[in-house]
Amino acid sequence: MGDVRVQAVVAAESLGLRTYDAEQMSAADLSAFTARPRIDFGAILRTVEPIVEDVRARGDAAVRECTQRFDKVEMDDVCVPIEALPEPKLDAESRAAFDTAYDNIRAFHEAQRATDVDVETMPGVRCRRVTRPIGAVGLYVPGGTAVLPSTTLMLAVPAALAGCQTVVMATPPRPDGTVTPEVAYCARRAGVTHVLKAGGAQAVAALAWGTSTCPKVDKIFGPGNQYVTAAKMALQNSEAMIAIDMPAGPSEVLVIADAGAPPTHVAADLLSQAEHGPDSQVVLLALPGLDLAAVEVELAKQLDALPRSDAARKALSHSCVVRVPDAAAAARLSNLYAPEHLIVNVEGAEAWLPSLDNAGSVFLGRWTPESVGDYASGTNHVLPTYGYARMYSGVSLDSFQKKMTVQTLSEAGLRGLGPAVAHMAGVEGLDAHARAVTLRLAALGSA
Amino acid sequence: MGDVRVQAVVAAESLGLRTYDAEQMSAADLSAFTARPRIDFGAILRTVEPIVEDVRARGDAAVRECTQRFDKVEMDDVCVPIEALPEPKLDAESRAAFDTAYDNIRAFHEAQRATDVDVETMPGVRCRRVTRPIGAVGLYVPGGTAVLPSTTLMLAVPAALAGCQTVVMATPPRPDGTVTPEVAYCARRAGVTHVLKAGGAQAVAALAWGTSTCPKVDKIFGPGNQYVTAAKMALQNSEAMIAIDMPAGPSEVLVIADAGAPPTHVAADLLSQAEHGPDSQVVLLALPGLDLAAVEVELAKQLDALPRSDAARKALSHSCVVRVPDAAAAARLSNLYAPEHLIVNVEGAEAWLPSLDNAGSVFLGRWTPESVGDYASGTNHVLPTYGYARMYSGVSLDSFQKKMTVQTLSEAGLRGLGPAVAHMAGVEGLDAHARAVTLRLAALGSA
Repeated sequence: MGDVRVQAVVAAESLGLRTYDAEQMSAADLSAFTARPRIDFGAILRTVEPIVEDVRARGDAAVRECTQRFDKVEMDDVCVPIEALPEPKLDAESRAAFDTAYDNIRAFHEAQRATDVDVETMPGVRCRRVTRPIGAVGLYVPGGTAVLPSTTLMLAVPAALAGCQTVVMATPPRPDGTVTPEVAYCARRAGVTHVLKAGGAQAVAALAWGTSTCPKVDKIFGPGNQYVTAAKMALQNSEAMIAIDMPAGPSEVLVIADAGAPPTHVAADLLSQAEHGPDSQVVLLALPGLDLAAVEVELAKQLDALPRSDAARKALSHSCVVRVPDAAAAARLSNLYAPEHLIVNVEGAEAWLPSLDNAGSVFLGRWTPESVGDYASGTNHVLPTYGYARMYSGVSLDSFQKKMTVQTLSEAGLRGLGPAVAHMAGVEGLDAHARAVTLRLAALGSA
Repeated sequence: MGDVRVQAVVAAESLGLRTYDAEQMSAADLSAFTARPRIDFGAILRTVEPIVEDVRARGDAAVRECTQRFDKVEMDDVCVPIEALPEPKLDAESRAAFDTAYDNIRAFHEAQRATDVDVETMPGVRCRRVTRPIGAVGLYVPGGTAVLPSTTLMLAVPAALAGCQTVVMATPPRPDGTVTPEVAYCARRAGVTHVLKAGGAQAVAALAWGTSTCPKVDKIFGPGNQYVTAAKMALQNSEAMIAIDMPAGPSEVLVIADAGAPPTHVAADLLSQAEHGPDSQVVLLALPGLDLAAVEVELAKQLDALPRSDAARKALSHSCVVRVPDAAAAARLSNLYAPEHLIVNVEGAEAWLPSLDNAGSVFLGRWTPESVGDYASGTNHVLPTYGYARMYSGVSLDSFQKKMTVQTLSEAGLRGLGPAVAHMAGVEGLDAHARAVTLRLAALGSA
């Protein structure tokens, strides 16, 4: 993919990578190391709120106007059933590549199907947990500078496996008002039911409130720019009664590399994150023996050959390298940072897994670049960023389901458990709770 | 638990229960039926925001002042390690009852432990999903009009099973500054590590930001009044970087009862929800043959014998009864309402389960009052309310864990998958993504 021999080799320092030594990091250094670019959500929320309210009030007309204003596209239709899209024309190689991705994503998410829980906690007290699909879901597939058919697969495949009845994909239209053929292909393949040809806060609002053409959904998924994220966050706290997959921030990778990691590969992995955008976060933890100078030379070389080199260069300018003495120090710093993507390019990578706690997705070993997970290994690429990997999981089959608990007591079960329940209700001063039990015990002739 | 023979039987109509016939409900009726009391979160947010900011800025001092102002308690200590609490003195019956609850909750949540996913999606492409505990969690246990040791068990048991290292329980202190003995007993029993003696928005803020005595947590759980809920919702969208279990609204029950359901039991179940507070939601779906008049007489009788009859009476005044012709209509209305608690007091209740989609927890059959799940069957009582059962699950072991995906490609795996990945990256215009693959394929001598 392109010739990496470049004439002008930029001096490594000019990339502006901060470099730390793990053994000499102060509390302030650690804080700077884990810090993400600060996002002023207050200001962004104030921008999106009028849009969200306008779509609530005026529905499709408001969406249409926003699309004209922000995307410079005049739309007749706003949301259409998937059948209304023209048959997408794809070359055979693209079709085969997306089919491979589809198959692997489907296989991995199908394997996540959990069996129901079913236990007798006491004689005659049966407790179960059963799974049900979320009825209607909205999938946001970003457009703009890149087309992202891969995101369509990452969201629509588990939605279909879960059994969601209504699957609305929102994506900004192209200048001619159509949907990118690769996105349309993946949407059909993966069972999307409706396509909302809109992006930004207006698309999220249409999914949340519903419009005359767009079904209202119960939960909204997918990455997006700061306006999309702000709209999701505002709407999850609103009367729209929707859930969201997770908060989202700029994409990020942390690479752990040892002496045996080829500098060309390390540099390529760092750049594959940096090219996402100027806000992307790139961190390298360098174990003893890694040739950092060679990595930096490679970075500069590969950077200049990239069409998105400006974005990547900006991303690198606020990224950093930490020299770590050993595996324990590397795992500790990685867990502290809690990266979205964690590449472990070391000898014996498998042995690292038990010590890794906080990451969205982990890429183990020499032959596992992040790109494989972004597209086609089978794992989901919608992952927690911004440090949220400490408490959020990436999108999975579970994200499209909810679980109900179910209990069934036999007469013997209530005889056995009832008195304890009545006693605890008494302690809490909830007499009617107690009575719902004691009246039944009386009916059983045991109270 | 109290004598239900009451002198003054209130006329059934005076309870103010709206009554519908399912076959004659208009769209407006359906909308009124599913409507919950509207909560003005804007106004509540404006009330809690200064508190949240004050705790952020001044930590323990701010918490202490709020506790003095709102709870009228002067506190020296704000957050203490669990060992610092005095040994709680409980009578043997209480101890036995809470121990039974502990055992059952533990058994049901332990059964939720999922095995790791581990599949080879293609030859040489291994994808896994592994589970990790969330490091630090905050558990809000309401105080105020009722003491809720049961909530301590519901939150602390799965936190301990998950392996969370720091488990901070927040609960408002009693007038003398101590923690209710039953709550302290359950907290010790279930592995709480710290006790924050505070309630309201100030407690939630202390958990989210951390103070000099209170550890900062990653996720905040538990029910609470509207200020607690508003603080959780505001903080999940803030720089505090916390997750919350779910949005919360007033508690609610929907009872489906047939001709064989004893009116005394149906009334007791409705009242056990109504006594929670004036905002509680109570719905009865009456199948043919249920003696509604007898239910209403029982309601009036049992109501007058309740210490919390005022709250229960108010709750009943905005609740409703729907006469349903058959099981299908009942299931359809129940799914539309999406109740927190669903009691199915019918003959052959088990057969209903497949048709029930939206509920927090289901209570099947004649001998399964909601109270058993509130305390001790083993299921969790922290459940989605307000219609959120459409897309949220109740608290479970999973709520205290996150899942990381892991992929490992062998050389053969990258040879097999790499070309498709490089092609898709090309389609999306992400050259560095492609190069992270092609450089490795070149190193393998196959590109």
